Amino acid sequence: MLILAEGRLGVFSSKTAVCLLRYRADEVVAVLDSTRAGASTAEVLSMDVERPIVGTVDEAMEHGPDTLVIGIAPRGGGLPADWRAVILAAIARGLDVVSGLHVLLGDDPELAARARERGVELVDLRRPPAHLRLPRERHEPHPGRRPLVLLTVGSDCNVGKMTAAVELVRAAERRGVRAALAASGQTGILVAGAGIAIDRVVADFMAGATEQLVEDQRNVDCVVVEGQGSLTHPAYSGVALAILHGARPDGLVICHHVGRTEIDGYGVPIPGPAALRAMYEQAAAWVQPLRTIGFALNGHGASRNAFEDYVARVERETGLSAVDPLTDSDRLIEAALTLAAVPRGGI
Amino acid sequence: MLILAEGRLGVFSSKTAVCLLRYRADEVVAVLDSTRAGASTAEVLSMDVERPIVGTVDEAMEHGPDTLVIGIAPRGGGLPADWRAVILAAIARGLDVVSGLHVLLGDDPELAARARERGVELVDLRRPPAHLRLPRERHEPHPGRRPLVLLTVGSDCNVGKMTAAVELVRAAERRGVRAALAASGQTGILVAGAGIAIDRVVADFMAGATEQLVEDQRNVDCVVVEGQGSLTHPAYSGVALAILHGARPDGLVICHHVGRTEIDGYGVPIPGPAALRAMYEQAAAWVQPLRTIGFALNGHGASRNAFEDYVARVERETGLSAVDPLTDSDRLIEAALTLAAVPRGGI
Repeated sequence: MLILAEGRLGVFSSKTAVCLLRYRADEVVAVLDSTRAGASTAEVLSMDVERPIVGTVDEAMEHGPDTLVIGIAPRGGGLPADWRAVILAAIARGLDVVSGLHVLLGDDPELAARARERGVELVDLRRPPAHLRLPRERHEPHPGRRPLVLLTVGSDCNVGKMTAAVELVRAAERRGVRAALAASGQTGILVAGAGIAIDRVVADFMAGATEQLVEDQRNVDCVVVEGQGSLTHPAYSGVALAILHGARPDGLVICHHVGRTEIDGYGVPIPGPAALRAMYEQAAAWVQPLRTIGFALNGHGASRNAFEDYVARVERETGLSAVDPLTDSDRLIEAALTLAAVPRGGI
Repeated sequence: MLILAEGRLGVFSSKTAVCLLRYRADEVVAVLDSTRAGASTAEVLSMDVERPIVGTVDEAMEHGPDTLVIGIAPRGGGLPADWRAVILAAIARGLDVVSGLHVLLGDDPELAARARERGVELVDLRRPPAHLRLPRERHEPHPGRRPLVLLTVGSDCNVGKMTAAVELVRAAERRGVRAALAASGQTGILVAGAGIAIDRVVADFMAGATEQLVEDQRNVDCVVVEGQGSLTHPAYSGVALAILHGARPDGLVICHHVGRTEIDGYGVPIPGPAALRAMYEQAAAWVQPLRTIGFALNGHGASRNAFEDYVARVERETGLSAVDPLTDSDRLIEAALTLAAVPRGGI
């Protein structure tokens, strides 16, 4: 993969690029950002995966990509004019193009025609499934035994809900529990290889699509649903609530970026740990009660002291654990498994 | 208008038919429901508007319709096969067709081709506007002076949020206040003549579309936004929250159908008046606090005693008024106007 992150390569500004470098590094050959060309990913992103940063599709070709992945999303999801030129260049070079934009590339007449001529594929991660439905009513039969369902929710967008979900699945698997990621956004879908972008479905079908996403995970004992947005987010609170009610989780993991005090762009104050927990538990209980398992903290840019202070605050206010999911998800899974009699390997 | 309500004509089973007969009676010539053909609307719906009920489009033609309005919605919003035959018959007879279904008639190749041949129009009330956006961020300029914004919310679907909103606009106008209905669903759009079906937009844009809907109401001092669903509804809670946060109302009117104790089809218990109020006020305050004005009660099918008992319970638990919006919306508007210095006619 060649990842497009034009003008935006950074830990918080190009989430897809960072997650692909973290979870599918073997498949990434280069990153395209002309403003950083010549630098390396290790340097720009302070991570230990080293890949070249190039300025054009042509330059990237020496690294042998077969796919261009659009690793950034403009606010509102449109297709900026200069990206179109990059996509056309990639198609001309015979690359498939994978996109998580709201604007579906496959529905764009020019891009679709060029892709057809060149015999390459346009993959729209946010394209909703052809058949969506409402959640099952009380009288409708449910499919067999339900796995333990966990959901990652957040204090804002872009705080680490997807990363926490991936790490919880890995931690469960390390304990011998058959687990799956139910990916609800474009980056999660790239990491999991499947999923439904809940923010892209017709509004009436959000909860039903989330139920469907959970039920699509077969032959596992634990499903971790990637949450979206936040109940306090003026633009995306509705998506967050629909996923909370549609997933009907047994347990929640609350994700927060240490040091963030208000919703990015909107200035709405982010509640403290006890209030965040109460908010999510109350909102869930409007339909079905659940328990909070713990907090997953993103410490990027925060001092060690600030991180430890927030961990102590969570423990003091809620009695729950707060961990960095990249290193300590095992503690959260341990707590989650006490919620249900989930079969564990070797026991 | 000829209203299609096949097999479903009733107060709760064909909301659009009832509302058009209540608010646009002069334009309704007949109702199509073959299971009730020969009966009259006054009889079936216990209302004083008398229109013939016919069994086919052909029979309806003697009453001179120029438009077929689809006045019922199948669960999930699809197009049942037998309705297609009715729509084709209407097109063949030269009628325009107005639809609030999720399935957009204009995008159906067969229907679109027939309509084009016959020179009639297919109007999809739920078709989203071409340009949707997110809510304005803090740094983005807002348009001029903001009117008083009221929102009707509910304890379930189909309890009277749209009717309450229409009646609140009328009550405001009776007091000389320039008021407008911001219609968020297909029936409201039919009554108001404009609006955005928020449940039909791409999920990410629900709150932005609601903000846009409020801002589209020009030269008025009071905007009443029609709410959708309920925060306790397993399928539609996300739409309800997005409208609550996107409209940023000053005041809420909570709508309830007296005697209903659980969410239709899902069995989720409906909270009592104080808990409903607390739920909506808390959820609003995650983004911006507001005040509850009062309750609008739908008494259909309830005894006079049951209605009065619920009114007394609202007053005891919340100190607020509960009224039948069809007869007593003036009391709610009176309370709402104390929220803001809204210019009143003649004072």
